[in-house]
Amino acid sequence: MGKEMNSSHNYPYPLLVPPPFRWDQREVNEPKVHEWIETLDVTSVVPPDWSQVDVTILGVPLSRSSISASAASENPDAIRRAWKYFTTYNLEEDVDLTVLKVIDLGDVRQHVTDISVCHRNIREAMVAMRTHHPNTFPLMIGGDHSITAMLVKGWKAAHPEERIGILQLDTHFDLRSLEDNGPSNGTPIRNLIESGTVKGEDVFNIGLHGFFNAKSLKEYAHRSGVNYITLKEARKRGVARTVEEALQQLADKVDTIYLTVDMDVLDISVGPGAPASTPGGMRSDELFEAVQIAGSCPRVRAMDIVCLDPVKDVAQATVKAGVHVMLSFLTGFAKRKS
Amino acid sequence: MGKEMNSSHNYPYPLLVPPPFRWDQREVNEPKVHEWIETLDVTSVVPPDWSQVDVTILGVPLSRSSISASAASENPDAIRRAWKYFTTYNLEEDVDLTVLKVIDLGDVRQHVTDISVCHRNIREAMVAMRTHHPNTFPLMIGGDHSITAMLVKGWKAAHPEERIGILQLDTHFDLRSLEDNGPSNGTPIRNLIESGTVKGEDVFNIGLHGFFNAKSLKEYAHRSGVNYITLKEARKRGVARTVEEALQQLADKVDTIYLTVDMDVLDISVGPGAPASTPGGMRSDELFEAVQIAGSCPRVRAMDIVCLDPVKDVAQATVKAGVHVMLSFLTGFAKRKS
Amino acid sequence: MGKEMNSSHNYPYPLLVPPPFRWDQREVNEPKVHEWIETLDVTSVVPPDWSQVDVTILGVPLSRSSISASAASENPDAIRRAWKYFTTYNLEEDVDLTVLKVIDLGDVRQHVTDISVCHRNIREAMVAMRTHHPNTFPLMIGGDHSITAMLVKGWKAAHPEERIGILQLDTHFDLRSLEDNGPSNGTPIRNLIESGTVKGEDVFNIGLHGFFNAKSLKEYAHRSGVNYITLKEARKRGVARTVEEALQQLADKVDTIYLTVDMDVLDISVGPGAPASTPGGMRSDELFEAVQIAGSCPRVRAMDIVCLDPVKDVAQATVKAGVHVMLSFLTGFAKRKS
Amino acid sequence: MGKEMNSSHNYPYPLLVPPPFRWDQREVNEPKVHEWIETLDVTSVVPPDWSQVDVTILGVPLSRSSISASAASENPDAIRRAWKYFTTYNLEEDVDLTVLKVIDLGDVRQHVTDISVCHRNIREAMVAMRTHHPNTFPLMIGGDHSITAMLVKGWKAAHPEERIGILQLDTHFDLRSLEDNGPSNGTPIRNLIESGTVKGEDVFNIGLHGFFNAKSLKEYAHRSGVNYITLKEARKRGVARTVEEALQQLADKVDTIYLTVDMDVLDISVGPGAPASTPGGMRSDELFEAVQIAGSCPRVRAMDIVCLDPVKDVAQATVKAGVHVMLSFLTGFAKRKS
Amino acid sequence: MGKEMNSSHNYPYPLLVPPPFRWDQREVNEPKVHEWIETLDVTSVVPPDWSQVDVTILGVPLSRSSISASAASENPDAIRRAWKYFTTYNLEEDVDLTVLKVIDLGDVRQHVTDISVCHRNIREAMVAMRTHHPNTFPLMIGGDHSITAMLVKGWKAAHPEERIGILQLDTHFDLRSLEDNGPSNGTPIRNLIESGTVKGEDVFNIGLHGFFNAKSLKEYAHRSGVNYITLKEARKRGVARTVEEALQQLADKVDTIYLTVDMDVLDISVGPGAPASTPGGMRSDELFEAVQIAGSCPRVRAMDIVCLDPVKDVAQATVKAGVHVMLSFLTGFAKRKS
Amino acid sequence: MGKEMNSSHNYPYPLLVPPPFRWDQREVNEPKVHEWIETLDVTSVVPPDWSQVDVTILGVPLSRSSISASAASENPDAIRRAWKYFTTYNLEEDVDLTVLKVIDLGDVRQHVTDISVCHRNIREAMVAMRTHHPNTFPLMIGGDHSITAMLVKGWKAAHPEERIGILQLDTHFDLRSLEDNGPSNGTPIRNLIESGTVKGEDVFNIGLHGFFNAKSLKEYAHRSGVNYITLKEARKRGVARTVEEALQQLADKVDTIYLTVDMDVLDISVGPGAPASTPGGMRSDELFEAVQIAGSCPRVRAMDIVCLDPVKDVAQATVKAGVHVMLSFLTGFAKRKS
Ligand SMILES: [Ca+2]
Ligand SMILES: [Ca+2]
Ligand SMILES: [Ca+2]
Ligand SMILES: [Ca+2]
Ligand SMILES: [Ca+2]
Ligand SMILES: [Ca+2]
Ligand SMILES: [Ca+2]
Ligand SMILES: [Ca+2]
Ligand SMILES: [Ca+2]
Ligand SMILES: [Ca+2]
Ligand SMILES: [Ca+2]
Ligand SMILES: [Ca+2]
Repeated sequence: MGKEMNSSHNYPYPLLVPPPFRWDQREVNEPKVHEWIETLDVTSVVPPDWSQVDVTILGVPLSRSSISASAASENPDAIRRAWKYFTTYNLEEDVDLTVLKVIDLGDVRQHVTDISVCHRNIREAMVAMRTHHPNTFPLMIGGDHSITAMLVKGWKAAHPEERIGILQLDTHFDLRSLEDNGPSNGTPIRNLIESGTVKGEDVFNIGLHGFFNAKSLKEYAHRSGVNYITLKEARKRGVARTVEEALQQLADKVDTIYLTVDMDVLDISVGPGAPASTPGGMRSDELFEAVQIAGSCPRVRAMDIVCLDPVKDVAQATVKAGVHVMLSFLTGFAKRKS
Repeated sequence: MGKEMNSSHNYPYPLLVPPPFRWDQREVNEPKVHEWIETLDVTSVVPPDWSQVDVTILGVPLSRSSISASAASENPDAIRRAWKYFTTYNLEEDVDLTVLKVIDLGDVRQHVTDISVCHRNIREAMVAMRTHHPNTFPLMIGGDHSITAMLVKGWKAAHPEERIGILQLDTHFDLRSLEDNGPSNGTPIRNLIESGTVKGEDVFNIGLHGFFNAKSLKEYAHRSGVNYITLKEARKRGVARTVEEALQQLADKVDTIYLTVDMDVLDISVGPGAPASTPGGMRSDELFEAVQIAGSCPRVRAMDIVCLDPVKDVAQATVKAGVHVMLSFLTGFAKRKS
Repeated sequence: MGKEMNSSHNYPYPLLVPPPFRWDQREVNEPKVHEWIETLDVTSVVPPDWSQVDVTILGVPLSRSSISASAASENPDAIRRAWKYFTTYNLEEDVDLTVLKVIDLGDVRQHVTDISVCHRNIREAMVAMRTHHPNTFPLMIGGDHSITAMLVKGWKAAHPEERIGILQLDTHFDLRSLEDNGPSNGTPIRNLIESGTVKGEDVFNIGLHGFFNAKSLKEYAHRSGVNYITLKEARKRGVARTVEEALQQLADKVDTIYLTVDMDVLDISVGPGAPASTPGGMRSDELFEAVQIAGSCPRVRAMDIVCLDPVKDVAQATVKAGVHVMLSFLTGFAKRKS
Repeated sequence: MGKEMNSSHNYPYPLLVPPPFRWDQREVNEPKVHEWIETLDVTSVVPPDWSQVDVTILGVPLSRSSISASAASENPDAIRRAWKYFTTYNLEEDVDLTVLKVIDLGDVRQHVTDISVCHRNIREAMVAMRTHHPNTFPLMIGGDHSITAMLVKGWKAAHPEERIGILQLDTHFDLRSLEDNGPSNGTPIRNLIESGTVKGEDVFNIGLHGFFNAKSLKEYAHRSGVNYITLKEARKRGVARTVEEALQQLADKVDTIYLTVDMDVLDISVGPGAPASTPGGMRSDELFEAVQIAGSCPRVRAMDIVCLDPVKDVAQATVKAGVHVMLSFLTGFAKRKS
Repeated sequence: MGKEMNSSHNYPYPLLVPPPFRWDQREVNEPKVHEWIETLDVTSVVPPDWSQVDVTILGVPLSRSSISASAASENPDAIRRAWKYFTTYNLEEDVDLTVLKVIDLGDVRQHVTDISVCHRNIREAMVAMRTHHPNTFPLMIGGDHSITAMLVKGWKAAHPEERIGILQLDTHFDLRSLEDNGPSNGTPIRNLIESGTVKGEDVFNIGLHGFFNAKSLKEYAHRSGVNYITLKEARKRGVARTVEEALQQLADKVDTIYLTVDMDVLDISVGPGAPASTPGGMRSDELFEAVQIAGSCPRVRAMDIVCLDPVKDVAQATVKAGVHVMLSFLTGFAKRKS
Repeated sequence: MGKEMNSSHNYPYPLLVPPPFRWDQREVNEPKVHEWIETLDVTSVVPPDWSQVDVTILGVPLSRSSISASAASENPDAIRRAWKYFTTYNLEEDVDLTVLKVIDLGDVRQHVTDISVCHRNIREAMVAMRTHHPNTFPLMIGGDHSITAMLVKGWKAAHPEERIGILQLDTHFDLRSLEDNGPSNGTPIRNLIESGTVKGEDVFNIGLHGFFNAKSLKEYAHRSGVNYITLKEARKRGVARTVEEALQQLADKVDTIYLTVDMDVLDISVGPGAPASTPGGMRSDELFEAVQIAGSCPRVRAMDIVCLDPVKDVAQATVKAGVHVMLSFLTGFAKRKS
């Protein structure tokens, strides 16, 4: 927890701790995902050549800011452990992810009893990433959804001139008032709107369904201009087409689209490990296609995956789905290069 | 079990016991389902104004009449506990259930070793409801499927002039002979037909599939005129349209349609907590749409949800689906008012 | 393990052990599956009249040849135990499986520490079946996928003149090199191709998806002519039509089609009990339809079901799906008789 | 359920059904328990030579008479399946159980909805056993504790001249009034006392502890003369010595001691699969020693094991403990022969 | 969360929220624990007569201050739900807890993202209790161990003149430095010492074992005079005697002994639901006896039970043990009255 | 699996693969166990100074040689992951394990389908360790019990002049004949005796109990002179004293004592994760004390921990117990230095 990181090279973010373990990565012909993603070597005297790095992974192990009890803080490590179940090759798309250089930076340093410190560190970690290697794509593994507000604010601080849009895949609006309980996982979108970081009209939420949002939140969405397409509507139009249109509308007006995937958007049968998993949610093939499309959209410049509690998971189904979301996104992303 | 209910007001059903617990329900702005559904206050000297009550919830915690081991008796409480995971607002339909006044009456009093007493109490509870507050909609939470025969017989006893139809969503016919083992959960529809309570032709079963019914039951269905549409057929036509047509055909000839939802109609991946859960069953979105349609049909005047064993459940998926079934139905029901 | 089988009749395969238990099978009117499938009585002095037997079940309890830890060796018994949950009557197809005479032969005798002995026994068991009762359809319950190579080689040894095709439903190619680790569950198709048992062009793999195969395996598939249709492609064309076309193409050139169902082709939500279960896989209704179609194809003359680990299962969902696969196949098979 | 048993030999109990499955039992040198215990062959024209049979096993799959939800009805089969984990040889006592001839008779036929029929069948099954093979020791596998009253009444009906004593190992008195809910699992001892079958003074209960009995039950115990030693007291004296003394006191006055083991006497850590498992209960080594001592006491002439719900079990710990209880008892029993 | 409590009587603690549910408590002859413990009726215009109240229960649902992920925040409700498994009568001690009047006050109001507010509320709740009803015994149900520091500080604020001692049953010292991560669950004892609330010499820790404390914490214990007896030592002397001597030594010098029970003191086999459960810990009978002794010691004037995560529990073993700890303590407490 | 290890320093064992992951181990003040145990850096050009290394850890991930299905092959990694739950400081013994230098060498390279290759590699790995760093203590983490025969044979090959004794803590004799099924996990001790590696009289087995060994194995033990003390006997004498005496008797005649701990010696409540876990076994405190005593005995010069299946585990109880066994042993070992 309080372990010091006297790294010897020039990438000095004191806000980070290395991942607790690193996969053995000696040369193999066809790596699995855990053998392909590199771990930042903080003991090296030479920093990586960031110009060669396409994507950085950042763990954000915070879930004490969750309204309901959540062990989503365990998720970054659970995701890292599950990498070994996946190859780097997407057969259906004929894309080999090894064309990308991906580095795992480790986790944002957390504080046990001061959540505002955690949130500040998260924001600063994004600033640091944007400062030290602005050309890498940041892919964050939460943690609960409160982190999204901090990460986007960090982006905004690093790029104050940019107009930022949000593509949110979620069962919830996340538009609760911050007055009651501060920046919890029920509030990130409202937080971004009320802080002036993002305009309501620049938010697209896809996946809402059922009885999981108070009516007042919908009214707030209307007042603030937040765009949303329920799962039923999206299926009528086609989920893929819905995502494409939302991205297009955003791309027409914003500089940067931030993609945030709340794993509770999945149906409870495919995502039992989300703290608020519900029946009536998205299928995994729908979600994987949605994020792959987002991955191929050049305006999408950052992404997070949140609200995945590996302790609550069944048969590792949700953790594996989380890894698949990450890899499906990167499949789209790899296509940008070609 | 033997607790006496010296209620002080005029609603004297000795057949009922209050629910073992009641949710705290002081004033909130936007209630969750558990804060919205009221619990009958048996200690009050003033009974509720039943003319203002739209729906009564009745727990029927009987599963010792189940052929296979079942803890469906635990379901009424499990459902009550899971109300807290749901808001009253259906986003996709823009329906707020708080327009309905719903009261939880508690549970039908059960006997430990005399199932015929249990069954008589269940029948009498329905008679009592129809007598004391005939304008409320009774929504029963089972228990195993044997209770449906008793509830419909109670309705018939209270309304002997009515012709009653059944819309059954089930993986099974429930047409086994009563001669072998009495009114178990394998028999309710046959029980109703052979007792003259319901005509075979006034039964519609939607959702049958696979290898879960003996051939002789299908033959009995044919002989007795029971209508059934297998899941495969229903999907070809569209599940929604199939339900609408069944309701229409029933509405054309009966006075009252009784909706009975056997949770084992769901695929085992979305409903692992049904004692007889099977692969190849209905998706939850199909079921939710089906019951919402039924909810909006004015001729549907009573409903039950049965065969949900919360002890066998995984990740609370089936219990949450059970609550969703109830709320989806009420969404349709609320539309009747508008 | 070392139990001797001094059977008194003329069916002398020393390679077999009876199943550890047999269901009570005295006369019933409408049997469940466990009351319908007979167990070979090795103590009888009179062998069965094989000309009257349609299908033989053979357990192949080997999974120590699996790359990852697997208790698929427990599957034959798990499948046998789960028979009791199923009737013999397929309601949707109006097919009663009791028109078929099915005998459970027991299990292939295994060796604890010499996998080559296990593999030889499996091959020889197929030869014995083809020799003693060549007109029965052999339905094998694995075990891991390494057994398929042995079973098909056994078929080839018994029918050297035949050209054999494979219809494989799988998330994986199973085309790994045998040089590294011998005939493991990653290699059966390559094993068959490289041994000259089956031509690459006579293999059809349906169901591949996601990030679960190395790119080099796809290249090997291309080089060796293996046909494959990913799940996404199959869904575009229709899974049923895809299967029909594959069977048609095979039937046009081969004498015998061997159907092999790797249960990990199913999505993790419906098949959590496959050792390598993944998100993004097939739905159970798709799989059931696919195997029923194969069952009705006269050229399909043997079948196996592999890679089902009942210890890893959740709510018995995968084991029940495994039984359903077997029964759906037999539904198609029964249609051949009519 | 309704399967007829047209047995061809002279052991005509229509109250019995064979076990649903039988273990393969061809000759082995050193059998495991499942290979040693024989299953009654109801199709044989020759009945067994009962004079050579030491012990009969009888399943009593009734738990619909349980106050709380219980799947103890699944226990007889669970116990039978778990036999395979045990050898017949008790190393510590140097006793080989194969000196005993043990036959599994199958299960008492149950009725689904009329518990009084179930109870009558249970009673009559004991009468039948005492009539057809009075020299075999009956060992019953429940089921819930209500069956004990029926079994002892059956014994009394067969041996009206005998004075019967009870040694009960239980966390509960089982002295609830029958007036409220009939002969449930909370009442067997009171049932026996009030029916005059057993005198209160001839009952010894060992193992009571904690907060699991109402005070009025203790007062009833005092009034009726029931002897009890709490677990704390028993440990002070030594559990073995306590059991020996209780047996001695009983042996001095009764003709037959009936041993009844309620598995909820075990601590929840070693017996999580009892429906009412509690912390603070007996250790398994204490229980095994207690029943072995009872086994060696010639006056103990019948035994049952009740309240074991294999569905609620964890890691099969309780089912394995149940088998061990049975085998430990038989170890003592085998010593009677030497 | 933000629900206002406009209680109409004079007990105005805005720091409290009622429990989310209340048990039905109409008159019964022999109540179970949930029928005996009353819930404070905040809607009543008349406050309870506090002079008649012996014990108040206070839920402290905070675990976001836990170092490792913990759902101990769910424990107060889990404990309340499990009351129904227990009678009020301790058979071994012949103590009926109904001689005590116990009121459940509900839970301390929590904040989602500001842990310092949570901690302040907890402290103030204790002050409020000591102010409004100083003669009732406060029994707190946590929550993680960080709450103990706040509760004892609250006591000290209400009784600044008192010297307070601590009897801690724990696998850990809880002496970590507050500098690193604030008042987490690793720090409460050090927090109390360094704040001058309690002297090191007035702390007795019983139950330490194994490899679960850093050496520096032991050294801190030595420096600060904290008394500790490892489990191995305690067993040598006798756990009961060890507790008695510790209480005696404390009683000789302090005014008030605060008993804090960290459920992780239990061995993992009996307490799997503690977030940090370990092998080699205390048996439940040892713990129950220890707290009963403490209950009977008049100088023990407050108590808490912490670090019980019901989501992590197995077979409800730990939750039931938690209730038993509470009842065993009250058994001792009830003896003070006689 | 086939990953090549082109290590650059002089420790060339091609039989080893590095562990799949390594813990982050930058400088901390008080390390947890995972921060203290070093991982061999195979990429380093400089080998470790073996004269400074006290203990080497070697994973032996083989369980395909197990009679029953076992995922003990997953155990070395499970143990490594669970190190993080433990400090290096044994409070009760005041021993800090950091006085020892411990290096994790990684795992013995396995073959998927040729178990004889696996066994040969295991034997050769021991030879290599004894050759390259004969002064380090080898601590092996299995794997099933078949590995012990290979490891001891490796020792014998490296030290042909030595007389080797075995201290075995086990529920089983492991004296089955190798003729039936080769060197499975039921045979290691017989394997060692019949190969002349160890004399029967130099084997001490402590912990046998219940019905888990065939009588013929006991007879073999007698014939071959194997010493055994059942758990019941050991408890009469005192488990600690029993172990001490066995060590003393061995030390009087052999050069090297090899300690082998089969985790199934533990009772199923504390060790549910052993493939053959049973009721009636050892308590964890007994086992921890036994191995600590062995650790302090200078003649004990190698150790293994086998038959721990982390997939079958409950609440990680058995894996944590496995780590504790290792640390308790090292506590004794550390005392040798002082
Ligand atoms: Ca969200
Ligand atoms: Ca959400
Ligand atoms: Ca039904
Ligand atoms: Ca049904
Ligand atoms: Ca395969
Ligand atoms: Ca596969
Ligand atoms: Ca009892
Ligand atoms: Ca009991
Ligand atoms: Ca603590
Ligand atoms: Ca602790
Ligand atoms: Ca062993
Ligand atoms: Ca063993």
